[in-house]
Amino acid sequence: MTEKRYAIGADIGGTNLRVALVDGDGSIVERYKASSTDADVFDSFVSAVGRLYSGEVAGIGIGVAGVIDRDKGVVKRSPNLPSVEGVGFADAIRKRFPVPVCIENDANAAALGEKWRGAGREFDSFVLFTLGTGIGGGVVHGGRLLDVAAELGHMSIVAGGVRCLCGNNGCLESYASARAMTARVVESIEGGAESLLKECCEGNVYKISPEDIYNYALDGDNLARETLKTAGRHLGVGIANAINIFSPEAVILAGGLTGAWNIYIETAIKEASKRAFPELFGAARILPSQLKDDAGAIGAARLAFDKAGTR
Amino acid sequence: MTEKRYAIGADIGGTNLRVALVDGDGSIVERYKASSTDADVFDSFVSAVGRLYSGEVAGIGIGVAGVIDRDKGVVKRSPNLPSVEGVGFADAIRKRFPVPVCIENDANAAALGEKWRGAGREFDSFVLFTLGTGIGGGVVHGGRLLDVAAELGHMSIVAGGVRCLCGNNGCLESYASARAMTARVVESIEGGAESLLKECCEGNVYKISPEDIYNYALDGDNLARETLKTAGRHLGVGIANAINIFSPEAVILAGGLTGAWNIYIETAIKEASKRAFPELFGAARILPSQLKDDAGAIGAARLAFDKAGTR
Repeated sequence: MTEKRYAIGADIGGTNLRVALVDGDGSIVERYKASSTDADVFDSFVSAVGRLYSGEVAGIGIGVAGVIDRDKGVVKRSPNLPSVEGVGFADAIRKRFPVPVCIENDANAAALGEKWRGAGREFDSFVLFTLGTGIGGGVVHGGRLLDVAAELGHMSIVAGGVRCLCGNNGCLESYASARAMTARVVESIEGGAESLLKECCEGNVYKISPEDIYNYALDGDNLARETLKTAGRHLGVGIANAINIFSPEAVILAGGLTGAWNIYIETAIKEASKRAFPELFGAARILPSQLKDDAGAIGAARLAFDKAGTR
Repeated sequence: MTEKRYAIGADIGGTNLRVALVDGDGSIVERYKASSTDADVFDSFVSAVGRLYSGEVAGIGIGVAGVIDRDKGVVKRSPNLPSVEGVGFADAIRKRFPVPVCIENDANAAALGEKWRGAGREFDSFVLFTLGTGIGGGVVHGGRLLDVAAELGHMSIVAGGVRCLCGNNGCLESYASARAMTARVVESIEGGAESLLKECCEGNVYKISPEDIYNYALDGDNLARETLKTAGRHLGVGIANAINIFSPEAVILAGGLTGAWNIYIETAIKEASKRAFPELFGAARILPSQLKDDAGAIGAARLAFDKAGTR
């Protein structure tokens, strides 16, 4: 009988798909990345699993952006990835690949990944924020992933604020995500603000990325700096709330936006320090992710190992 | 040897003190209530325990409003009860009464009380809000009290909002508590608003209580109704946030303000229904506390039994 020494872990955090073959120590043996449209994401995923699958695979773990029904293996809601809503991922995958399959929210999977092999290894309790197009959250408590929705990006921090894709008003995600930053820049430039960003992307403001904003901020552009700082202050509100609620040993920040650490994240930390209960803030270390974009796939693989009972 | 069949449970949620002798089934055998000033609260507490203590007491559990260091038995921070900050409750009590002593946040203790003997019995996971002068929170997950700060009243829901006693801005407590309601009424009347509440309390607006506001609202007073509804809408934001974070089976609402259920709470539920992820809102029942003011003392007694290992 073939030894079941690998698990496949997948992170479907949006239309960027990452699928990895992971060994029992949490190391990635082979990695497959793809971009697809929302409509194609399920087929792209199946095809990626097919490339990595073998008789040595003990199980398949899938992290998906959205609200998950763990027992039924269904994505109940995914504002950023509507085509997967209602899709019975677990059943559909199990039919094609006869191994245990489990499904989890992508940020929760990333939190478990960081606990297993990353920045969370030394902590019994931490809160993880994924900072990208949207904002996700995952919580480890008592050394284990807390199986709650942990939709920290959809906690309202501006009760009367702007409408979010999820239907709520004033969500953290609407003020501190990449989407919020680029929207703010477009709005400001269209409103007549002076900024070097006007010249970015051959003048097409809709193509300005968070990286562009960061680079222009480093060059001293005022709109770019203010955009990052405003988003950072709002992220600080979210971090303070998470600290007052979970009293964690650490807050781990993951996702592409952490590249703007010295402006965006430093502003957030300063804001959180003014807001959270000082005793709780002082007890929480604030750290970057170590696994970066691999955290979700590694955490999902861990779930698959645990479900298969083979690691 | 005397049988250790009781525990003493205390709820020090403010200057109102409640200490109870509780049997192994969670029933209160004897109850002692007192009001005291902030400065006297520790002495009042010791005196109350003295009245109930006997050789049949297995342990003493204490719920205190504030941030607790469970291991050291110290109240680290208590915005509403500053005299107890830094007080080594557990040690001081243990010196006088030679039994195991444990300490917990008062709203956390209330959540455990509701889980043991109240509205939370049938749920594996729920979030409890205590709605009074301030707002507290407690979370049960996987059938057990989650040992986190759970300071849901000090989650900022209006990032640029008013300053809270805790130092944060825009806390839920500043918009949805009894203190928020009475402050709003005073401010409105002093600002010239027309209201029958002007005639309440012999014209002393500073004496108007949340009960007065509720009674005048029932009589059709506009300011009173709007005050309750505004507070309710903000509570709804807090409930929605808690649902999106904890995806609980239930939200249990406790504290004096639940007396205004048909205006304040109904408004909150409606607001939360518009804000939380529909799948999560639909899965969460919203219920009143069953143990009312006894929840904290009963939950604290349960902690004492568990610590003593005698129940």
